[in-house]
Amino acid sequence: MATINDIAAKLGVSKGTVSKGLNNARDISEEMRKKILETAVELGYVSKHLQKKEKKLCILVENMEIHTPNQFGHDIVLGFKQMAEPDGWTVDIVPIDIEFQRGIPYGVFMLEHGYHASFLLGLTLLDPWMKEFRISNIPTVLYDNYIKGNPYIASVGCDSQEGFELSVKHLKELGHKKIGLISGPLESYILKARYNAYLNAMEKYGLELNDNYIGLGYYVNDSTKKYIPMLLKEGVTAILFSHDIRAISAITECNDRGIRIPEDLSIVGFDDLPMTAHTLPPLTTIHQDRIALGKCGFYALSCLLNHVTIGSILLRPTLVVRNSTGPVPGKPAR
Amino acid sequence: MATINDIAAKLGVSKGTVSKGLNNARDISEEMRKKILETAVELGYVSKHLQKKEKKLCILVENMEIHTPNQFGHDIVLGFKQMAEPDGWTVDIVPIDIEFQRGIPYGVFMLEHGYHASFLLGLTLLDPWMKEFRISNIPTVLYDNYIKGNPYIASVGCDSQEGFELSVKHLKELGHKKIGLISGPLESYILKARYNAYLNAMEKYGLELNDNYIGLGYYVNDSTKKYIPMLLKEGVTAILFSHDIRAISAITECNDRGIRIPEDLSIVGFDDLPMTAHTLPPLTTIHQDRIALGKCGFYALSCLLNHVTIGSILLRPTLVVRNSTGPVPGKPAR
Repeated sequence: MATINDIAAKLGVSKGTVSKGLNNARDISEEMRKKILETAVELGYVSKHLQKKEKKLCILVENMEIHTPNQFGHDIVLGFKQMAEPDGWTVDIVPIDIEFQRGIPYGVFMLEHGYHASFLLGLTLLDPWMKEFRISNIPTVLYDNYIKGNPYIASVGCDSQEGFELSVKHLKELGHKKIGLISGPLESYILKARYNAYLNAMEKYGLELNDNYIGLGYYVNDSTKKYIPMLLKEGVTAILFSHDIRAISAITECNDRGIRIPEDLSIVGFDDLPMTAHTLPPLTTIHQDRIALGKCGFYALSCLLNHVTIGSILLRPTLVVRNSTGPVPGKPAR
Repeated sequence: MATINDIAAKLGVSKGTVSKGLNNARDISEEMRKKILETAVELGYVSKHLQKKEKKLCILVENMEIHTPNQFGHDIVLGFKQMAEPDGWTVDIVPIDIEFQRGIPYGVFMLEHGYHASFLLGLTLLDPWMKEFRISNIPTVLYDNYIKGNPYIASVGCDSQEGFELSVKHLKELGHKKIGLISGPLESYILKARYNAYLNAMEKYGLELNDNYIGLGYYVNDSTKKYIPMLLKEGVTAILFSHDIRAISAITECNDRGIRIPEDLSIVGFDDLPMTAHTLPPLTTIHQDRIALGKCGFYALSCLLNHVTIGSILLRPTLVVRNSTGPVPGKPAR
């Protein structure tokens, strides 16, 4: 394990200077402090917080609302804390954004605050820290993201495959055969996973796969506007959406165009955002247990902290049937 | 929660008789005792052991050696106990086979012994209890097996996808392009997963997929004998095996035929059985951390006991490079 001496030797400065840098003292330059912290991370120095076994974790949040009860991020944080705090951990919630990540490397941030490990919500493949996760040796759990080959990083999320199989099975039982997919672009880990889950589920239930049944677009409303008429023209009678936001946009779009849901078109979302119970009609969707997702985050961190190098924990989803799905058009209601 | 009264009413017998059945008393018939236990399971009766919160788990083992140190089953059991016992659980190890499973339903067995939950090693899709797992409400974790849609059952295993990607990447770096697969039949969950992992890994690294590069056969030695010449004729220069036993059989076969490993053919296994370090040449293979797998089993059970309905925990594998892989024939060694 690297010591303060090692850092001092490497930088050619005194032990006192290194100590000031590590302890956030004001009488050294910001540049020197940064250099010291980066060298500490590089050499694998373990901070006094960690040495003292203060049990500190952080949840790093980007693009996610965490203060409103029942919202996605809020519940995940709650579930995580319900497991971590009785186990003696202090849990800090830290909002981060791309600017923040550009300003400080992940390892330096974690060292500076004495965090043992972190749970990350809402990052995308484009975030600056994602590159660092490939080589970081800090126990880190990502929600709905996956880093290959690094034993210090694990992933938690909901099983997309099981989710899409539930949706396709439900629609097939209602008589639907031509089932489409509308999704965002396949640039994120989770949208790729859901896209593959759609293909596999259709295959599993013996339904026709056709490129013309699939619409992938960046802008939610624009792509809904474009793909719904396209898919209907192909004879599609039900559409799966990679996430609820798009499904909700589709409900609005259909209402505007006089396309009746579910009489003319069945719609299934994914995530079960709280608002989906109140759309018109209420949305059939795949439910992720958000509290349980937060708990999974802590289980995954526990594994990593205990040197059990898991890659992923997947939670089982459930199907919530509301009123946006019905029998295939032309078939009498059951 | 069902009571002794409920069971008595359903069967039309006295409370005393039910109590005798549940407590294993000798003065009632075996047939009545069985009926009482089955009704207890059906009605969701919670045994006095569970009510008293005696913390009892079992590891149910089939087709797996668990008494020899460093062997697969032994180490998994050890890892599980290392987590469970400090947490206050008594862990019983119970060998089971098909006859045993035919003799008593899983739910009755668990109720009779007062086990809260179980960890199962070595079962296949053909085992009688597998059907019961689809509807059982007892927290149960399966190693290398998966039950869809039942929130009381979870699965642990090693990430086949990441394993095959490590193997294919390694072989590609050595210049191999035509890489084959020899596997058992795709009747087991895990062999299916590894087969798909092979296809995906080849695709990911831009290598040609060809049905003639794949040999699936039930009998280990027979299929090795048959497929190795077939694949070599196709120009395959490296073969991945779905598990080490087949790879070891292939080494023997190649030695007999004068096919030099790795000069003429590179071979990669999966599992890292202890003996693979001592074959001639020692086998390059995918390592599963067996102690960690056992620990994962306990983590998964903890999730289920805590009503966190996970589907799976996957452990990261690593590649162990020994001497059965080398540069593609015709290419100078690096």
